[in-house]
Amino acid sequence: MTLRSEILEQPEVIRGLLERERSNLESIVRALKGMDFQYVYLAARGTSDNAGRYAEYVFGSLNHLPFALATPSLFTRYHQVPRLEGALALGISQSGQSPDVVAVLAEARRQGRPTLAITNRPDSPIGRTADFVINLGAGEERAVAATKTYTASLAAVALLAALLSGDQSALDRLGAIPGEVDQVLSREAHYREAAQRMASMERCVVLGRGYHYATAFEWALKMKEMAYVLADPYSPADFMHGPVALIDRTFPVLAVATRGDVMDSMLEVLESVQRDQQARLVVLSDDPRALRLAEVPLELPGAAPEWLAPIVAAVAGQLFSYHLTLEKGLNPETPRSIHKVTETE
Amino acid sequence: MTLRSEILEQPEVIRGLLERERSNLESIVRALKGMDFQYVYLAARGTSDNAGRYAEYVFGSLNHLPFALATPSLFTRYHQVPRLEGALALGISQSGQSPDVVAVLAEARRQGRPTLAITNRPDSPIGRTADFVINLGAGEERAVAATKTYTASLAAVALLAALLSGDQSALDRLGAIPGEVDQVLSREAHYREAAQRMASMERCVVLGRGYHYATAFEWALKMKEMAYVLADPYSPADFMHGPVALIDRTFPVLAVATRGDVMDSMLEVLESVQRDQQARLVVLSDDPRALRLAEVPLELPGAAPEWLAPIVAAVAGQLFSYHLTLEKGLNPETPRSIHKVTETE
Repeated sequence: MTLRSEILEQPEVIRGLLERERSNLESIVRALKGMDFQYVYLAARGTSDNAGRYAEYVFGSLNHLPFALATPSLFTRYHQVPRLEGALALGISQSGQSPDVVAVLAEARRQGRPTLAITNRPDSPIGRTADFVINLGAGEERAVAATKTYTASLAAVALLAALLSGDQSALDRLGAIPGEVDQVLSREAHYREAAQRMASMERCVVLGRGYHYATAFEWALKMKEMAYVLADPYSPADFMHGPVALIDRTFPVLAVATRGDVMDSMLEVLESVQRDQQARLVVLSDDPRALRLAEVPLELPGAAPEWLAPIVAAVAGQLFSYHLTLEKGLNPETPRSIHKVTETE
Repeated sequence: MTLRSEILEQPEVIRGLLERERSNLESIVRALKGMDFQYVYLAARGTSDNAGRYAEYVFGSLNHLPFALATPSLFTRYHQVPRLEGALALGISQSGQSPDVVAVLAEARRQGRPTLAITNRPDSPIGRTADFVINLGAGEERAVAATKTYTASLAAVALLAALLSGDQSALDRLGAIPGEVDQVLSREAHYREAAQRMASMERCVVLGRGYHYATAFEWALKMKEMAYVLADPYSPADFMHGPVALIDRTFPVLAVATRGDVMDSMLEVLESVQRDQQARLVVLSDDPRALRLAEVPLELPGAAPEWLAPIVAAVAGQLFSYHLTLEKGLNPETPRSIHKVTETE
């Protein structure tokens, strides 16, 4: 039961991170404030890439920083590296082993740019390459599907952005998140029942927007990794631009939409696919308007602000994916064919 | 037969673009060389987003420019716009109507940043917002699935990057591309036969790396839009990091891999999924080693260099998708539920 226990550890992991890394992040922020950078150059893979998608919105919104996603093969295969003037290089990797992420950080450093790593292994190649290291301290993650290192990465990003912005109320709000994750875990039976109703699903799309663009990608990845459901993540705009053609009654639509600035546009899209495609909707939300549109509602407790809701929502998505896997008679502990560390550059 | 005739027009459209826009792009390049920017800030949606993925590699490789992908909802919903110091803003939109792309270009302009638009409608909101406009001049695109505006966008990006780099041999090589697209079209029967063999497919992944990361996304989008095949695009690294768990004999793997610096790593992944997952492989390639691994080989004629191969390969992917759609008894001219212009911000 490794995966399940790692899911359950999350409130403690996040609580520990926020306390233990606070003074380290404060000194990183002091150092960064003396440096000249105009944008963040991000290197990450897989689950960490989804943490990067979250960082893009959080740093964009709280710190007005644009984000560029690194193209590792330019570094490792084409040997045509971008000029990184103006960049702060950020690598996210739970194992700290990804050769891609190492290559990007090493080149940024060679070009004299500041480098920052978020990792669960500060003694890893990535940890040793970066000027500044944020230690997730999540304990060993033994299950193949990443759970606690994902939410810990999100919490690290949120803490860094809040400290960089100097917004005390944002910091205070972040401190309440572990308690809200506790509340999600206490509703496990609700997510299990929802999974039972969807046990026959083999494919789906997963919609999310803004901060929850990351949630949609991460939820889809868990559905693929654990339950072998072909789950395709989209922003509603990209979805309506083409892939909506795939949807009919046999093709479920999962969506994550919590209260905030993108809720109205999410409701519009959900109403449209319910009306025009008769889609089976599974909606993860804290808003009764969105939950009412769902055939299978996944209620999200608490009232996390929009920028922190992805931490809470990710855990609900994990529980739904985990129980769907069990309902399908599969073993979520031992997925077929996945390597924990990708060695492909 | 609108879609088919638009596919067949592509050599002429690209030839026309390269001739007609040459002097306009030369003057844009002269102006850009006098401006101070460290990276490109890209706004695009759908098919144009895939042209952006191509631009990321071409500008990275030929011009050493990092690429940041805009997060439109920060502009249109959260009203927390990034500070764009150091950015050249680039909007790609065939219709020139996307409110997202307009919002990003307008804000960049407000911040005093240079703005460039690539569009098939210079008189559109996007064309009117940008300082510099590249006119695709592809003629009206009436089919819902974009074909000629995609390859024309790629050609525009390639021409701009080659002119910015001042590399005459790159410019000369680009001039041969319309003839190579002609050769692809002359092999239509080969792609039709391949589509017949795969007529029962309902889902797949599409793998591509480096320059062909864009090809994988665009091929997958055509498969979804035309043939309602649930096609999930991945880089091999991200694929091996998790989604490979989905693959078995019933789950086809499409891949695009042409000669160049990423071929060895693509061969490794293809050999691995053939050996370990017994996957049905459909491989689009100009390399006998890759074609031999395929159950259904899609031969790509010509010998386009790696950075230009995505223009040629896209057309082969269109023909395969088009004939697969016909084989399925569907009408590629009238997909269900797609809006030609997405109005969702």
